[in-house]
Amino acid sequence: MPRVAVDAMGGDFAPQAVVEGVLEALEAFSDLTILLVGQPEKIHPYLKRRRVKRLEIIEASQVVSMDEAPIGALRAKPDSSIRRAFDLVKNGEAEAVVSAGNSGAVVATGLFVLGRLSGVSRPAIATVLPTVKENAVLIDAGANVDCKPHHLLQFAFMGAVFAKEILSRTNPKVGLLSIGEEGGKGNTLVKRTHKLLSSSTLNYVGNIEGRDIYRGEVDVIVCDGFVGNVCLKLSEGLAEALMAMMLDEVRRKRSAQLGFALARKALMNFKRRIDWRERGGAPLLGVEGVVIIGHGRSDARAIRNAIRTARDFIQQEVVVRLKEALSELASPSGVAS
Amino acid sequence: MPRVAVDAMGGDFAPQAVVEGVLEALEAFSDLTILLVGQPEKIHPYLKRRRVKRLEIIEASQVVSMDEAPIGALRAKPDSSIRRAFDLVKNGEAEAVVSAGNSGAVVATGLFVLGRLSGVSRPAIATVLPTVKENAVLIDAGANVDCKPHHLLQFAFMGAVFAKEILSRTNPKVGLLSIGEEGGKGNTLVKRTHKLLSSSTLNYVGNIEGRDIYRGEVDVIVCDGFVGNVCLKLSEGLAEALMAMMLDEVRRKRSAQLGFALARKALMNFKRRIDWRERGGAPLLGVEGVVIIGHGRSDARAIRNAIRTARDFIQQEVVVRLKEALSELASPSGVAS
Repeated sequence: MPRVAVDAMGGDFAPQAVVEGVLEALEAFSDLTILLVGQPEKIHPYLKRRRVKRLEIIEASQVVSMDEAPIGALRAKPDSSIRRAFDLVKNGEAEAVVSAGNSGAVVATGLFVLGRLSGVSRPAIATVLPTVKENAVLIDAGANVDCKPHHLLQFAFMGAVFAKEILSRTNPKVGLLSIGEEGGKGNTLVKRTHKLLSSSTLNYVGNIEGRDIYRGEVDVIVCDGFVGNVCLKLSEGLAEALMAMMLDEVRRKRSAQLGFALARKALMNFKRRIDWRERGGAPLLGVEGVVIIGHGRSDARAIRNAIRTARDFIQQEVVVRLKEALSELASPSGVAS
Repeated sequence: MPRVAVDAMGGDFAPQAVVEGVLEALEAFSDLTILLVGQPEKIHPYLKRRRVKRLEIIEASQVVSMDEAPIGALRAKPDSSIRRAFDLVKNGEAEAVVSAGNSGAVVATGLFVLGRLSGVSRPAIATVLPTVKENAVLIDAGANVDCKPHHLLQFAFMGAVFAKEILSRTNPKVGLLSIGEEGGKGNTLVKRTHKLLSSSTLNYVGNIEGRDIYRGEVDVIVCDGFVGNVCLKLSEGLAEALMAMMLDEVRRKRSAQLGFALARKALMNFKRRIDWRERGGAPLLGVEGVVIIGHGRSDARAIRNAIRTARDFIQQEVVVRLKEALSELASPSGVAS
């Protein structure tokens, strides 16, 4: 019986979208219990009835706004919905947190309340990308803007567990994002990380370039959170720009409109697929518990999908698998150097 | 009378593509003189006749291969075509170098032979990107993988000169690539650079995100060479991947094929536009002379276009304009802090 704590107050359309998503998830997954955390008087109007099976409302008086400084929010709001949701996991009352709120605050609070897994210096956000072949996971998507080589090594191990357990890859191929395929290419961070990865037990295939991300040749793409975030947003923006460029063409050629409509559909579809947080939430890997970060723009369907991801993580025991992989990393055979 | 030194031996299709491109350029621009540098016995077969007006062949006995280590090549091959081409600029016999050869070797040799402009710590590669509105310039596209804030500040000044002189923008808007629009967002490098740019005399509009690159809201996009190169290659790869995804759709819907053909044309067109090195070469800014780096895959047309860019740079006196802008940077009013 998976138990998921959901932040009712997080996201641009909270609490309505969150409450509706929670109701959808409860209907879709009959084994699920949800602890919905927030201000009861704001939640109740969207519940439709007084009592819902397998749903508990947990009161939290404070709300962290979307643009609040994460550390400030953590200190100043001990009774925020984000904080209370993590407390539920800490106390064993829930196994996962789902929040579409201020993602910096979710990361900081998760780290503070749950703590890191042994062997993890920095938890990282994993995000699923569509490719020409199968989906791949990119890690870190934005939790850590300044990284050391051993952080990237840990991201690689965590990404490989994700690819195995959630994307069902056996022996996932791991690539390091750089600016040339040879091991000697890249910045200082990447060159040093390449050495660590080369002597690790992972199925490391070497450097990949930006153009390889969507080719689907690797299952796990490792990079720091600054580069990862730039890549994600660039991809979104490029899909939009291409749409605009194509629309520009179609105005001139009426005969082609059906095809263009389909092409646009393909682009929109890609854009939606790229934003994994809208589809199923992006997990924060490396903390003692399951944490799924939803997109700020999450609608009810996105919330439902993020809850589904949390349920998958609980059932696949991803945190246990992460611990196993990280202990391998810590052991002498994990990294030869 | 612009005089351009062209590396005959550089590029995947050298010397044939280079010689053909040179002949095209000489025909297109009647004010141009070209010094073609390389192994005469390899060049002559493609010249068709013994003497060509405004063309001189300059002998260089050595060739730097495309995958040779740049510094090693600089040391071991004092008579390479790249080295000889730069010597011609150094000695005042030519005003510009065009090479589609090993770009690391071109950067290293250019720096060594010509030296840096006063006020420039690191020359950078500028590249022109298509956007939904007008073209923009991204700097650095890959010359410097590890940067300091003052390097990025210099890139910004050089990019602004490029936008003014070559893209004809008055008071070009400069944006700093980061992962959030607020000045406090980004990695350490970007946060510090933001402060420098904020107190500079540039028309600095603040941080931009990956998704803004193709929106055309800024004329100059500043980033380190690692991030810049990842962005460029990601964009190329994404355009390819989207094409593959769309082709996948069209197989199912025959009625849409015309539209798809046009959509594919738009994507191919974008892909070609994105690779500025194929279109007109990417200038290396910050050295004492004009240096245009062509793409390794350059065909005759690409070589011709790179020569045209070199000619534009000479006629617009871009190096003089760069010196003026950089002296402004060095003066107390350039940066307030």
